[in-house]
Amino acid sequence: MEKGNENKTPLHVLGEAGIHQRIREFSASNRPETILGQGDDAAVLRQAQGKETVVTKDLLVEGVHFDLMYCPLHHLGYKAVSVNVSDLIGMGAEPAHIVLGLGLPPKFTVEALDAFMEGVRLACNRYRIDLVGGDTVATLHDFFISITALGYVNAGEGILQSGAQKNELLCVSGNLGAAYAGFLMLDRERRIFLENPDVQPDLSEHAYVLERQLKPEARTDIWDQLNRAGIRPTSMTDVSDGLSKGCFMIGRASGLGVRIDLERLPIHPATLKVAEELKMDPYHLALHGGEDYEILFTIPLESYSAIENIEDVTVIGFMEEDPQVFQMIDRSGKSFPMQEQGWNGFGQQD
Amino acid sequence: MEKGNENKTPLHVLGEAGIHQRIREFSASNRPETILGQGDDAAVLRQAQGKETVVTKDLLVEGVHFDLMYCPLHHLGYKAVSVNVSDLIGMGAEPAHIVLGLGLPPKFTVEALDAFMEGVRLACNRYRIDLVGGDTVATLHDFFISITALGYVNAGEGILQSGAQKNELLCVSGNLGAAYAGFLMLDRERRIFLENPDVQPDLSEHAYVLERQLKPEARTDIWDQLNRAGIRPTSMTDVSDGLSKGCFMIGRASGLGVRIDLERLPIHPATLKVAEELKMDPYHLALHGGEDYEILFTIPLESYSAIENIEDVTVIGFMEEDPQVFQMIDRSGKSFPMQEQGWNGFGQQD
Repeated sequence: MEKGNENKTPLHVLGEAGIHQRIREFSASNRPETILGQGDDAAVLRQAQGKETVVTKDLLVEGVHFDLMYCPLHHLGYKAVSVNVSDLIGMGAEPAHIVLGLGLPPKFTVEALDAFMEGVRLACNRYRIDLVGGDTVATLHDFFISITALGYVNAGEGILQSGAQKNELLCVSGNLGAAYAGFLMLDRERRIFLENPDVQPDLSEHAYVLERQLKPEARTDIWDQLNRAGIRPTSMTDVSDGLSKGCFMIGRASGLGVRIDLERLPIHPATLKVAEELKMDPYHLALHGGEDYEILFTIPLESYSAIENIEDVTVIGFMEEDPQVFQMIDRSGKSFPMQEQGWNGFGQQD
Repeated sequence: MEKGNENKTPLHVLGEAGIHQRIREFSASNRPETILGQGDDAAVLRQAQGKETVVTKDLLVEGVHFDLMYCPLHHLGYKAVSVNVSDLIGMGAEPAHIVLGLGLPPKFTVEALDAFMEGVRLACNRYRIDLVGGDTVATLHDFFISITALGYVNAGEGILQSGAQKNELLCVSGNLGAAYAGFLMLDRERRIFLENPDVQPDLSEHAYVLERQLKPEARTDIWDQLNRAGIRPTSMTDVSDGLSKGCFMIGRASGLGVRIDLERLPIHPATLKVAEELKMDPYHLALHGGEDYEILFTIPLESYSAIENIEDVTVIGFMEEDPQVFQMIDRSGKSFPMQEQGWNGFGQQD
């Protein structure tokens, strides 16, 4: 799509049945629970006593969640799967299946569909999950992606946002603000390009933050590490809308407050570099940037030494008894109120 | 939306969290499997040994699948649930849960969301299913609805399109072509209105076909009747894209052909009246109209007398051994080839 549609094949050449057939060709087969995948009225999945099904849905809409001008379609396919898998990880569930809904506008070509589906297949194989069905329709304007993901937990072992206890440690995987830093870099280049299409952007020094924005990975690995260390989080969510929103979600659901230590926030050097270039506060990126798809969770105090041994997890604060307290402490020990601010597609800064 | 948005509340007044909260208020609680519904990263559903989960997804897009000019939002909410439940019925599954994705354009108001959700809640209670989660996002242009529905079957008892045997009877529930007849009436009134907004349409004599178009019911009742009569269909699908497409789906999946008797096609008097008014062939409506959400299925010959006792099911033909034969017989006994033709949103008559 990026280079215009000359020499590309319009979708209507395939027809509806042809499009469905094309999508079926990107099926993966990774899960023993899949009895029947695509092709009938519905998919059929095996159940087991003592298991629970975890179901989540995430929508991505062109012009709201992504811009095809700088978002390659194979990365977008990968990302659409990752963001859903991340929600399952945030419940402590093992990802297993996705159902894919696509709304395709008239400009969409067969080549574009193939590129997108290549990314979906790559992600399915990466996460060892199956694409088991879906629906594909024409739209008048917007390209949109609607994925429902299913995963499994042992009965009673799903990790909810509501399970945190007072004084427990608040931890986060990886680093924060990188995906938003990547977005800011892409957005700057887009504006430069619109003003002067002859300028070739050199984004190579920002490769890390661009990858975090364009092709995020769900943190299946963190969950494995926690299991091996014998640490069971008491509450958990994925950081899709920014750290501050995650803190408020766990705090409110658990009837507690949150206090975090700003100096402890894990921020990647590449993110610091973007903040410096744009003269922005790196803490702002980390707190409110969103799309990091890291895991935010609480653990009992006694797990402190065990969690310190896990690479790529940082203790950033603790749960306050007072549910009104959402505070941040800076290096001088001074407290500030935490703002519940993040990305919101409904035209309102909240 | 029909009367303009004066005195209506724009959605951004609620903000994203407020919209999610509003949708949560329309939750229903009908199923024992629902352990955790809306509000966390994902829903959690109980599994059972010997059961299978059946999953389907249907997308509806404004301007492609519905026109808000003549489609009241509460009916649209109901219909969006019905079309998904119908896919589960077409697998022989008991409908249980839905996950709701909404893409809301800037023109959408709080009142419009409430009206839509009222229809969703009504359908959930009608089908005794739970709304367990979803995602709601802003779009730039199109209003779209993405529903994933989950249901349950006893292990191995899902009814696929591929199970038909040669010489088996092909049966359909209810009557065919009514939903398309309703669409044609609405479309005619829309064009009259656009030419002369002062003409008040009188659609009262077309109430039956309008209801079939605007507020279709999934045929949960037929499945109950088949169970009571001890009839187990060997193959099944719902007639969402027209009878002819359904015949081709069952035929191809089963490696067989289909022969139907035109005179046997069940057509409602109200549909015949529309065909007469529009000087259209009523068989065309029945064969290719789509959106009837009736159930098309095959049964062994020996179930013939039992099926004759079920009201609202008609034997319309039988399965041919030759997979190339898709034929229709008229009252004179003459055979015609069946056209695989139906509604297709990708700008191609197929």
